[in-house]
Amino acid sequence: MRIDVKTAANFLMENNDYLILMHASPDGDTVGCGHALCGALQRMGKNARAVCPDEIPHRFDYMLRAVEAQDFEPKTVICVDVADTKLLNKMKSVGDTARLCIDHHQTNTDYAEMTLLDSECAAAAELVYEVIKALYVPFDKPLADCIYTSVATDTGCFKFSNTTSKTHRIAAEMIECGADFARINYVNFDLKTRGRIKLEQAVRENIAYFAEGHIALITVPLSLIKSISDIDEEDVGALSDFPRQIKGVDIGICLKEKKNGIFKVSLRSSERINAAKICERFGGGGHARAAGCSFEGGTLADAELAIVKACCETLEESGIK
Amino acid sequence: MRIDVKTAANFLMENNDYLILMHASPDGDTVGCGHALCGALQRMGKNARAVCPDEIPHRFDYMLRAVEAQDFEPKTVICVDVADTKLLNKMKSVGDTARLCIDHHQTNTDYAEMTLLDSECAAAAELVYEVIKALYVPFDKPLADCIYTSVATDTGCFKFSNTTSKTHRIAAEMIECGADFARINYVNFDLKTRGRIKLEQAVRENIAYFAEGHIALITVPLSLIKSISDIDEEDVGALSDFPRQIKGVDIGICLKEKKNGIFKVSLRSSERINAAKICERFGGGGHARAAGCSFEGGTLADAELAIVKACCETLEESGIK
Repeated sequence: MRIDVKTAANFLMENNDYLILMHASPDGDTVGCGHALCGALQRMGKNARAVCPDEIPHRFDYMLRAVEAQDFEPKTVICVDVADTKLLNKMKSVGDTARLCIDHHQTNTDYAEMTLLDSECAAAAELVYEVIKALYVPFDKPLADCIYTSVATDTGCFKFSNTTSKTHRIAAEMIECGADFARINYVNFDLKTRGRIKLEQAVRENIAYFAEGHIALITVPLSLIKSISDIDEEDVGALSDFPRQIKGVDIGICLKEKKNGIFKVSLRSSERINAAKICERFGGGGHARAAGCSFEGGTLADAELAIVKACCETLEESGIK
Repeated sequence: MRIDVKTAANFLMENNDYLILMHASPDGDTVGCGHALCGALQRMGKNARAVCPDEIPHRFDYMLRAVEAQDFEPKTVICVDVADTKLLNKMKSVGDTARLCIDHHQTNTDYAEMTLLDSECAAAAELVYEVIKALYVPFDKPLADCIYTSVATDTGCFKFSNTTSKTHRIAAEMIECGADFARINYVNFDLKTRGRIKLEQAVRENIAYFAEGHIALITVPLSLIKSISDIDEEDVGALSDFPRQIKGVDIGICLKEKKNGIFKVSLRSSERINAAKICERFGGGGHARAAGCSFEGGTLADAELAIVKACCETLEESGIK
């Protein structure tokens, strides 16, 4: 059942002993939502605990300060920023008992008893913010740090087209409530390990251009990832945006080799090209400007050929090249 | 004489035939201020023209659409984001006749008859925004594009510590007025020429670490800059932030060779180090986290030795190393 902010707040006031689930491969939004909501409920005198199926990256340590460890038996399961209980991995069965879900993904499977969803929100935390307001819990610095992190990380620091005026107004309020935004932005957007720099260098050394520079492709073979210590999944993921940032490029392709002969494509495009449509041809999908798909059973060169061919055809159809 | 927003607006209502000066080496803030103010005055039925001593970079072309060419003899000179008429280069003498200056630099020399200044503003455009409000000119899309560009570019897209809640609220309003923010951010923050990528690769290939990794240094010799076509002053300037982004680094140094044996240092530091104090030892200065100084008469190696030695001493004094 879809519900509004007021109903969600009433539910949270009436119940207790909350277990708040964040999605696996946790990002800034889910961690911010989980800890802001957990902290707010604790400040109301409720028992609450925020848990994640995966370890939370250390750069998010400051958000853990919004909550305190409490000893209690959870009764009420809530999911935040979790579109599908599959995204809870080993905690899927717990997620299937969720009474409330707060999310911003249009693809939400409505697995919870009640779902508070607004797909116009750049971050799920924009809804968590409204719920905390409706609960009359004031935002102290630790809560503000969480909400700020969520909205900043899900919008590339207010850069991407999903940002709205509401996103900016929430950020403004969190800054006034003491959010340590400059430090948060440094940690989430600027800080790089030496390994990440090595990885970026290696990948950028071999940019392949096609269709007179309208297409740029970078490849990330497993051997490269294995040769560099000090990098993680996120460092590899962050490469996806790079090729499309090159002047003149309408389609940026990042081709990554996963284990077991699987190749993953991340596509980024200009307004002239629909990235999702290209990826759908290979069973993938996504958004108009950012999409993805996978290739199995062939070589890196096979995958490269297939995706580049599809991109060239789309360029021709669109009259660009 | 320092004045407030209302006095500035009254002055603009009472006069006419405006020449609005932007500073040399124009950035997003001065160009945004110049064109937003010029466009607003034109919408009031006034004559106005925005001029810059240097050519305005093409990536700002969209801001030129906020104004139309008018044929008139200028009578009233206004400077925007110009702290000192020296920054007007060949137009200095015109700037010296300025009746009004709108600025956010604490270092403003009060050269104009009237100065509207607030150094708490992240961008001079935050004041131009208030003036336009006081003039009751509604923000249409072209004006909103200008103001949004100013506040976004002067804050590193709301990333830096100079950002305030007011900055975010102005951005929110400009988005509601139609600012094409995703496109503006792409052009100003993501887009890179192939030359810029080559330059970044070359510089990042040779990072020198000192003091057990607390100091990172990159050098940009003139020979490197000359070897790459398709790069400009700004591409070189953008390298300054990089060394401090490396994990573990408290002081990031970017050492650039200018013409005639001059070497320019850009220093970036963590909260534990005062970058301005280090640069002051060599006759430079700046802010606590970002400062600069120059070396003359020696070699690149001399400059490197001098600045690294000073940084090591500061690290020791601060008890870090």
